[in-house]
Amino acid sequence: MPVDTIRWTGKSVRIIDQTLLPNKLVYLDCRDVATLWDAIKTLKVRGAPALGVAAAFGVVLGTRDFKGNDTAKLVKQVVQLCDYIATSRPTAVNLFNALNHMRGLALKNTNVPARVLKVLLESEAMAIYEEDRAVCRAMGRHGAELVKNGMTLMTVCNAGGLATADYGTALGVMYAAKEAGKKFKVYALETRPLLQGARLTSWELQKNKIDVTLICDNMAATVMKNKKVDLIFTGADRIASNGDSANKIGTYMLAVLAKYHDVPFYVVAPQTTFDMKIKTGAEIPIEERAAEEVTHFGARPTAPKGIKVFNPAFDVTPNELISGIVTECGILRKPYIKNIHEAF
Amino acid sequence: MPVDTIRWTGKSVRIIDQTLLPNKLVYLDCRDVATLWDAIKTLKVRGAPALGVAAAFGVVLGTRDFKGNDTAKLVKQVVQLCDYIATSRPTAVNLFNALNHMRGLALKNTNVPARVLKVLLESEAMAIYEEDRAVCRAMGRHGAELVKNGMTLMTVCNAGGLATADYGTALGVMYAAKEAGKKFKVYALETRPLLQGARLTSWELQKNKIDVTLICDNMAATVMKNKKVDLIFTGADRIASNGDSANKIGTYMLAVLAKYHDVPFYVVAPQTTFDMKIKTGAEIPIEERAAEEVTHFGARPTAPKGIKVFNPAFDVTPNELISGIVTECGILRKPYIKNIHEAF
Repeated sequence: MPVDTIRWTGKSVRIIDQTLLPNKLVYLDCRDVATLWDAIKTLKVRGAPALGVAAAFGVVLGTRDFKGNDTAKLVKQVVQLCDYIATSRPTAVNLFNALNHMRGLALKNTNVPARVLKVLLESEAMAIYEEDRAVCRAMGRHGAELVKNGMTLMTVCNAGGLATADYGTALGVMYAAKEAGKKFKVYALETRPLLQGARLTSWELQKNKIDVTLICDNMAATVMKNKKVDLIFTGADRIASNGDSANKIGTYMLAVLAKYHDVPFYVVAPQTTFDMKIKTGAEIPIEERAAEEVTHFGARPTAPKGIKVFNPAFDVTPNELISGIVTECGILRKPYIKNIHEAF
Repeated sequence: MPVDTIRWTGKSVRIIDQTLLPNKLVYLDCRDVATLWDAIKTLKVRGAPALGVAAAFGVVLGTRDFKGNDTAKLVKQVVQLCDYIATSRPTAVNLFNALNHMRGLALKNTNVPARVLKVLLESEAMAIYEEDRAVCRAMGRHGAELVKNGMTLMTVCNAGGLATADYGTALGVMYAAKEAGKKFKVYALETRPLLQGARLTSWELQKNKIDVTLICDNMAATVMKNKKVDLIFTGADRIASNGDSANKIGTYMLAVLAKYHDVPFYVVAPQTTFDMKIKTGAEIPIEERAAEEVTHFGARPTAPKGIKVFNPAFDVTPNELISGIVTECGILRKPYIKNIHEAF
């Protein structure tokens, strides 16, 4: 496993503070839910699958000090916690899926003693964590079959170990390919404005001795045109039931460029990332973040004061631009509506 | 005129130090050629037309203290100066064109007294400066005819007053449209790695009361898809005789995205930006700059130590992706090879 992104210590949710990478590897113990909420909001922990795990652990954290035998009160507390944690970030569906599991578990067990429900909640969160790990490995195996010796890959943002409880989605494919003895190189897009590609993906791949070259997002087209790029792998934050995929801003750009340059474009995501309640990507809420992420670097302004900014954190890639969606159950391909509904 | 980007003071080449914008507006007097060379190299002064003017003024600066009547010696000094200034940056052809003018003038006037040649050189440089100003206005007029009331425009890097001796190429079109009473809004791409869009274009347009919204480069596709974008205007650093255009990295990306989203894509550049000696964009040398521009922000690292980087400063947009090239003589359109050769 590349990095210990998130875990439950029994007393705290221990995460790597990803805002400090690559300069410092610092673990942060979230000992209360407000601290965890803030860590999610400020991207100290991020990545759709990791957010699911964080949300589940958050419920455990928020009920840890519950005393007494009033199960109804505990259930109410779980529901309130779930509502609260759900306000941290809007786009990644894994967060809501995990909270639905935790909430559902509580609502189904109103007749067990409170201390038993607490154990059930902790077990459920651990199961979500363990499942994420198993799912990462399965996605990696399926995706790695696409990677041939000597290929050049490209990825955006960080869909790696730092985005999950194990070795990642898009980067998990690369780790699996490497473990299978394949040699390949990777172009990592830096991913403005928060540079997850530069700070996190470069760091992870370098640490795992994968040949990685960092580029700015606006260089991807030139690299596709002038260098050979064989495959693109990205993660996803939410996938509609027709295959439209929301992911970090710049992913849609990459998909359009891939189509123009005839490069196969794969999304790698667990089934928990699918939102079967929505028909198309148009229904996915897209988080817009603070202008300061674009206009400042740390405390230093890089744009004139008062400038208007549009800062969507995600975009939606329509299904027709996606060559395949690598899941733990195999690779889904067109026609997506039919194949996704059959898979679920 | 929006800004006093470059001028000859009689003793120095006075430029705005663009690396300090938008936080500080500082004028830098280059009193010797080494200082000017460094200012060009480090992008204190940049933009293809401005580089032509800077190069011409550089020759004046480097011969200003020439004493005596040895014309042959002065001519030799001019030739050496031209060779030296030409090493500052490789892509923008305007720099070489201006130096060719200055060198040619010296080589044609070996029989005049040295003090007369000095006057001729200064006049020639001033003529290049004045011509750039007139040419900007003419490009602006032609380009502004494409802009209709209520339109949304998009641009990359800074092809504005800060890139020329007057009001710019791509941004000159916007200034001319505004002067003609048209209302429109502009999306400015921040332009990694050096943020000329965020630092310079935003600043210029805001200063000139044009409705501008700053976005990261990787948001351009989403803006084209979800908001209405009517026209894209970019500058150029060198245009081959078939219309292939080199410009700031990210321009080719924008052209591909424009084609996919059916947005007309215009290059705005004076005839001095055409390099009629080369047949296609494949012959244009593309400057690769230091990795630190991508891996650091100021002194602060934003990527792991030792990471490999690819950092081309420019890319080439093939002629088939260009809807038209706005020059001082009108708008050139397909078929480019025929129409460019007829125009020259």
